[in-house]
Amino acid sequence: MSEQALATTAPPDGAATNGIRILTRTLTVSTGGRVELINITERIAAEVRSSGVRDGVALVSSLHTTLALFINEWQQALLDDIRGFIEQAVLREAYYKHNDPQFSDCDRSNADAHLRALLLGHHLVLPVHNGELVLGTFQAVILAELDGPRERSLQLQILGTA
Amino acid sequence: MSEQALATTAPPDGAATNGIRILTRTLTVSTGGRVELINITERIAAEVRSSGVRDGVALVSSLHTTLALFINEWQQALLDDIRGFIEQAVLREAYYKHNDPQFSDCDRSNADAHLRALLLGHHLVLPVHNGELVLGTFQAVILAELDGPRERSLQLQILGTA
Amino acid sequence: MSEQALATTAPPDGAATNGIRILTRTLTVSTGGRVELINITERIAAEVRSSGVRDGVALVSSLHTTLALFINEWQQALLDDIRGFIEQAVLREAYYKHNDPQFSDCDRSNADAHLRALLLGHHLVLPVHNGELVLGTFQAVILAELDGPRERSLQLQILGTA
Repeated sequence: MSEQALATTAPPDGAATNGIRILTRTLTVSTGGRVELINITERIAAEVRSSGVRDGVALVSSLHTTLALFINEWQQALLDDIRGFIEQAVLREAYYKHNDPQFSDCDRSNADAHLRALLLGHHLVLPVHNGELVLGTFQAVILAELDGPRERSLQLQILGTA
Repeated sequence: MSEQALATTAPPDGAATNGIRILTRTLTVSTGGRVELINITERIAAEVRSSGVRDGVALVSSLHTTLALFINEWQQALLDDIRGFIEQAVLREAYYKHNDPQFSDCDRSNADAHLRALLLGHHLVLPVHNGELVLGTFQAVILAELDGPRERSLQLQILGTA
Repeated sequence: MSEQALATTAPPDGAATNGIRILTRTLTVSTGGRVELINITERIAAEVRSSGVRDGVALVSSLHTTLALFINEWQQALLDDIRGFIEQAVLREAYYKHNDPQFSDCDRSNADAHLRALLLGHHLVLPVHNGELVLGTFQAVILAELDGPRERSLQLQILGTA
């Protein structure tokens, strides 16, 4: 394994000491289906650009138990495979206590959505460098609605040097 | 997708430049079963409140390979479903090299616990805003003991503006 | 649950207010198999040591959709179990649209690698305390090549107090 310091913004040793800068936002998104994948890459990248943070990290958090976030390639055929995988890994129609009025007061019958979010995860931390979100060529930031359609919220914290 | 700046603490552009503040703690927890889910939301929220960090992030890390952390709803029926899902996704009684004295010096026969932690993840990064942990209405911070009972440790780093 | 403040570096209340310091690096790694697990713990720990960050967090991000990162024990028998689990949880030879020229222009037939990375996750955030990476006794930082062999890149951001 080799190492390569990024020379564009950092002093010779690759480190900087500066004042901290933080941007805090709540983003809202309207989803259109029960299960739906939405590409939010450009939305997050635009927030990073306008944050004034030069080097740091961006935390994107779902504020819902049935709304997940993940990184992958935004290609329609693959998105269909991802959706198929999620739906097969956690079946909607199996028996769940959470869907049984004898044990639960939840009237959404959405245990599958809770378990699918457990698999995918509820937040992402992404690198910010030189004032830009850092992603690989084929990486997209993808929101997974698992129990929509609904109005949803994401919490965004962009933290680093000014 | 629309955007809504939180107006409560931030200057007009939603950003702040301040001194950095960090709180570092090791939390310990005693677990009571081999597989057990424990709600640590209030514990983490109290640490955030006492940290003096106003806006930033809180990293909660398991310091064990068989202790996981995740976010979901704290409802007994759902917790039973989650536990059932974990135990079904990775069977305890299957053959694992890690449990075979021919290949492994581990005497706990806990390969299932390692694989279950792999699925769930070992850490969470949570937003802090206005001096409070930010979670959605139904979101709880849940610790998953997968090979207890034991005395366990979590590393907590709360980082942001003072 | 009890709490224990780390006394080694922090003032009495366990918090510090200091200037922020950040190290940004791109690390490269050459992988040698289609599916391969690589221990990068010492590489990350050395970067933390040389970063000048005393207390904070280290973000390690895969810059590829088919390269994952996770924490677990570095033991050969367990690594074989982990590899077996990944390969069984997402079969390579199943039908995927992403591998079907009728729906996809991807010529790598690597849908399995995308789905396996979805399960494992693309990044880790690790605690830094007293100038050192904080990991439990048996925790290793493991890179999972899922569609190699290739030349791969990781983005590393180490952020905290100087």
